[in-house]
Amino acid sequence: PLRAQHDNRSLLFADLTREEYFQVQQYMLQQKGLDISSKQTTKPSGNFLFLIDLSLPKKSEALDYLDGKGPKPVRKATVVVFYGTKNYIKEYEVWPLPDPASHKDVTRERYGTELPLSKRLVTIGEYTLMFGFFQDEVFSKLGQLMKESFGVDRDRKLNAFEQMPRGVRSGDRKTWVSFFRDMSGMYIHPVGFEVLLNHESTNASSWKVERLLYNGRYFNSVEQLKQDYENGNVQKIVYKESVDYGSLKPRSSPLQIGPQQFDVEGKRYSVQDNQVVYMKWRFAFGLSSLTGMRVFDVRFKGERVAYEISVQEAMSVYGSVTPGMILTKFLDSSIGIGRFAHELVRGIDCPYQSTYVDTYRYIDTPAPVRFRNSICIFEHNMGQPLRRHFADFFHHSFGGMVNSALVFRTITAIGNYDYMWDFIFYQSGSVEVKVHATGYISSSYLVDGALKYGHQVAENVLGNIHTHFINFKVDLDVSGVKNMFQTKDMEFVNVSLPWMPDRYAMVPQLVEKQLKTEQEAALRYDTKTPRYLHIASNKTNRWGHQRSYRLQVFSFAGDHLPESQTEERAMSWARYKVAITKHKDFEQTSSSLYNQNDIWTPAVDFSKFIEDNESIEDEDLVVWVTTGFLHIPHAEDIPNTVTVGNGGGVLLRPHNYFDEDPSIGSADSAYFDPG
Amino acid sequence: PLRAQHDNRSLLFADLTREEYFQVQQYMLQQKGLDISSKQTTKPSGNFLFLIDLSLPKKSEALDYLDGKGPKPVRKATVVVFYGTKNYIKEYEVWPLPDPASHKDVTRERYGTELPLSKRLVTIGEYTLMFGFFQDEVFSKLGQLMKESFGVDRDRKLNAFEQMPRGVRSGDRKTWVSFFRDMSGMYIHPVGFEVLLNHESTNASSWKVERLLYNGRYFNSVEQLKQDYENGNVQKIVYKESVDYGSLKPRSSPLQIGPQQFDVEGKRYSVQDNQVVYMKWRFAFGLSSLTGMRVFDVRFKGERVAYEISVQEAMSVYGSVTPGMILTKFLDSSIGIGRFAHELVRGIDCPYQSTYVDTYRYIDTPAPVRFRNSICIFEHNMGQPLRRHFADFFHHSFGGMVNSALVFRTITAIGNYDYMWDFIFYQSGSVEVKVHATGYISSSYLVDGALKYGHQVAENVLGNIHTHFINFKVDLDVSGVKNMFQTKDMEFVNVSLPWMPDRYAMVPQLVEKQLKTEQEAALRYDTKTPRYLHIASNKTNRWGHQRSYRLQVFSFAGDHLPESQTEERAMSWARYKVAITKHKDFEQTSSSLYNQNDIWTPAVDFSKFIEDNESIEDEDLVVWVTTGFLHIPHAEDIPNTVTVGNGGGVLLRPHNYFDEDPSIGSADSAYFDPG
Ligand SMILES: [Ca+2]
Ligand SMILES: [Ca+2]
Ligand SMILES: [Ca+2]
Ligand SMILES: [Ca+2]
Ligand SMILES: [Cu+2]
Ligand SMILES: [Cu+2]
Repeated sequence: PLRAQHDNRSLLFADLTREEYFQVQQYMLQQKGLDISSKQTTKPSGNFLFLIDLSLPKKSEALDYLDGKGPKPVRKATVVVFYGTKNYIKEYEVWPLPDPASHKDVTRERYGTELPLSKRLVTIGEYTLMFGFFQDEVFSKLGQLMKESFGVDRDRKLNAFEQMPRGVRSGDRKTWVSFFRDMSGMYIHPVGFEVLLNHESTNASSWKVERLLYNGRYFNSVEQLKQDYENGNVQKIVYKESVDYGSLKPRSSPLQIGPQQFDVEGKRYSVQDNQVVYMKWRFAFGLSSLTGMRVFDVRFKGERVAYEISVQEAMSVYGSVTPGMILTKFLDSSIGIGRFAHELVRGIDCPYQSTYVDTYRYIDTPAPVRFRNSICIFEHNMGQPLRRHFADFFHHSFGGMVNSALVFRTITAIGNYDYMWDFIFYQSGSVEVKVHATGYISSSYLVDGALKYGHQVAENVLGNIHTHFINFKVDLDVSGVKNMFQTKDMEFVNVSLPWMPDRYAMVPQLVEKQLKTEQEAALRYDTKTPRYLHIASNKTNRWGHQRSYRLQVFSFAGDHLPESQTEERAMSWARYKVAITKHKDFEQTSSSLYNQNDIWTPAVDFSKFIEDNESIEDEDLVVWVTTGFLHIPHAEDIPNTVTVGNGGGVLLRPHNYFDEDPSIGSADSAYFDPG
Repeated sequence: PLRAQHDNRSLLFADLTREEYFQVQQYMLQQKGLDISSKQTTKPSGNFLFLIDLSLPKKSEALDYLDGKGPKPVRKATVVVFYGTKNYIKEYEVWPLPDPASHKDVTRERYGTELPLSKRLVTIGEYTLMFGFFQDEVFSKLGQLMKESFGVDRDRKLNAFEQMPRGVRSGDRKTWVSFFRDMSGMYIHPVGFEVLLNHESTNASSWKVERLLYNGRYFNSVEQLKQDYENGNVQKIVYKESVDYGSLKPRSSPLQIGPQQFDVEGKRYSVQDNQVVYMKWRFAFGLSSLTGMRVFDVRFKGERVAYEISVQEAMSVYGSVTPGMILTKFLDSSIGIGRFAHELVRGIDCPYQSTYVDTYRYIDTPAPVRFRNSICIFEHNMGQPLRRHFADFFHHSFGGMVNSALVFRTITAIGNYDYMWDFIFYQSGSVEVKVHATGYISSSYLVDGALKYGHQVAENVLGNIHTHFINFKVDLDVSGVKNMFQTKDMEFVNVSLPWMPDRYAMVPQLVEKQLKTEQEAALRYDTKTPRYLHIASNKTNRWGHQRSYRLQVFSFAGDHLPESQTEERAMSWARYKVAITKHKDFEQTSSSLYNQNDIWTPAVDFSKFIEDNESIEDEDLVVWVTTGFLHIPHAEDIPNTVTVGNGGGVLLRPHNYFDEDPSIGSADSAYFDPG
């Protein structure tokens, strides 16, 4: 008995199907002039079809279609090719889908410049060469050291974990790779050995080791380390078995199963294609291989509240005395956030009874890949009232309702860390956008001076201090696209008491402001910000107040990186708790696939979106929200960081948007009195 | 198969039993010299036995007993008597329980001064006189106006809602009473009529109306209003039926029941007397009629983590152009927070399957009262992992566990507002202390100038701007009572890169500080505060770091009230996000029963606790946490404020307290790999 109907216009935002990926791949491979390969083993010197993903429609065309005023926009794909032969990267649009027939180079249109090949990420093809290089040029040459210090032999090897950015200036591709024991949770088993690999050349035979770190000391070459080690001029690390403290295996047998939630009378939501209908809510969803999960055309009671809500970027800045992590600044969307949305585990990642959705992706792969159960959707009883009142005086009665809400979730495991992403749809008309971190911390071998950068968390292991910064895009459309940005707060004003005018008191008054330009509305982390932030319409509710949605940001973030650092512009969104821009189709994301590997000349610099300081009055506004926290690792991060307390988000709440709380109409409402 | 055992030493903190209340009451009534009455109709001029509650033991004696080093402390009750005949209030201790034989006046010892009768709250006895006064001296005399403006007749009356404080200076007992329609949710049906009653005298025949407000205009007497009304010199309010928008009755019939949670293999926690055992947790609990819920002797794996965690105060400051709410500053613990912990509704306030506990109270009553099911305890599956990691690289495996935690809850409905109080015990060793607000907002009749103080939320109704400030007491004992207060944060430091020393980068470093005195550790709302706050021991964990619990405060609070205001000292705890004091038995609460009704000379002024600026190094420390939010009412607050987004709290997290995450030992852990 769902009250809302599905509408297949949501398919506009659907990720490409398996067939569509194939069609686009084949279409591209058939363009003989382009000379592209789809082999996963393509070397950096070849031309590699790296990515196929949905190309989002222009918003104006999409709105016309959704609102029944225009035709369905042509469905297109974005294709990214790394041209090793030409030393550049190209982005194409390919259309129409299905059955592509045309393509166009959109690189300049999207980035305002060509993209040199050095901005590309490391593909599996390149990793294969790197691991081979380490085997041949490092491990084989240091057999004795590897055996004595790290227990490496025919059966036991070391695992690599690379740090980014890869160098200190544009064009650099010099990666510090740290080595870890081949144990579960390798990230917390550093061995004290790091190697700086110069892999700038697309020809792996030109690669070289530029520096090595062994037990806190630097060496200029493998030969120098080998010689010093054999001559006894080095403080040696002596291998010993280590405790398997990174293991997640249960240490006690199950006691009793804990509480479980059940849809006792069946599901109260419906998922069809990429559309969810839940109570008064309806939205489309998708999963970008790069930025991760997103929803579109979010409607409550049929009225669009948001055009898009999406994950944009997950960034971390680390501190360390060891060379890799001194510079580490991870920009996950350049590796691909959605790419790592793997299968969710029933009963742990999501409730057993959730609806699980498969996704298909094409990124650094020879063929589209199915990711089974990589999205979960469920209604959750929060175990608390959404609202309630017990009347004690004059009347005796109780009215209230439990807080059951719809959760839309993915979990992305990007190397060591797992981020849990939740969009929660409440019956009161609020949407909550949340992220939590779990998984393994990044760590380094404990050497002199290391304790300035974190805490020891295991034998010889430092858990390095770092930040988690997350950026979300929230394109609210409040009663249409023409909106403004308002703030509200209170201030104490000294007023005379009307019935005793010689007596004064400090009384809170409402202070409302409108911020009219992009720069005024870019709220920096370190400034005092009004407590209520609103995207408002000129249209009013029944009581004459402007209809609005309020943004309530939950964050424990701080400084992201001083602006003096060249790398800062690649993460300039993190300057702002909240920033508002005038919507533009070409300002689709606050970061890019190319920001990590050329962090010094970022392909997308968010601060440029607001540099033109456009008016944000009566315009289509987009909110960019930054949340996050400082992570000072401690013993309890071993083996894994827990989700509790390690998160952030933003709550989008109706504020004079309706004429009253819409949950009052919920069928979950209950009331009783003595009669 | 619970792993921990119950221990009846928790009874030390148990609320008085029904029999104990009776025994104390009878003992006090038998003290002929005191001339006390327990009748609820006792007039202000009589001597009224107002309150009986548990008197907490001295901490040192309690610890000796709990730790097997001393005898059980004598069980005592606190008794509060309002002496109308003597113009003072007395607090007594009565002991031993059961079978009391002695009593002692402890007023001076507790408050450093005598307590004049004017500090007392309004009892049911006094309310009865007040309502009679309004009937006889106001309503009866204004029959025509009451009928024409408010529809008052034999069957329909107005309801009163009083504002506090009662005046502007010490000794005042002049209460602005606002009148509301007798409809459900009366708080959002103001009629535009307010009366200032002077009830300073203990003799009700001396009471008088000092001022009236009708439709925004002031009158000096009932007679003047009557005359002006009848002569047509007043802008009349004309009664019309109003829509029943305050009703919580369902507006649609149930659809399908939503998801429900079940303890599928039985409860995994145990409640015996006032003690809860859950996984590695064990704690005692109680409910003070005044301050509300509290837990004591909170242990994890047998080791005490906190001696006490308790609600202290809920405060609100309002803004208005109307006379009552101009001055309104509610201090709920002076009315009694725990007093209003009523029966919890199964399936809405707490899950159906929760364990419900009855409480007994004696406050403003002729006999102890049983409050059925007024505490609920349940394990809740949060629908998300507590921790998880999916290993994609090198190893393929999944390990994780769902986040099931124990919730201890009461909900207090204090007039219009309902606060939901949660203490949540996680398997990772964290305790979360949370509050959410729901229920009805306070409102006033919309008159000229009112919109500076809020938004219109219904016809002729202004939702008044106000704050919610909540104070919690957190007496952590980290590895014993001798603790210190530490802060941690990061700062960017310009460092030379070891492998290219002419190159510098800004790198985050850990900054640790110890704050050594009470005043240093009183962290004001408007100052920048380190992000990590710790109560730490000198004892270290396995990795050599000081064992600590971190306090992570979730709050949207701001200015509480300028310190220039006389009323501020009664809420001086709200100056600080977090304040640390050296533990003292006589600094049991941050507010008092007497702060509301003599807000200008508060019986407890928290700022005095830190005025002596004691050392907090190697001492027993108590943390006082303030959380809250600004509430700008909006249409969606009608009929009720929703809990989502309207809350705050503090998370107590182990930080190098253990040697690793204790949840790794949980029987809920799961792991699988391809084998
Ligand atoms: Ca712009
Ligand atoms: Ca918009
Ligand atoms: Ca002190
Ligand atoms: Ca303590
Ligand atoms: Cu972290
Ligand atoms: Cu409120």
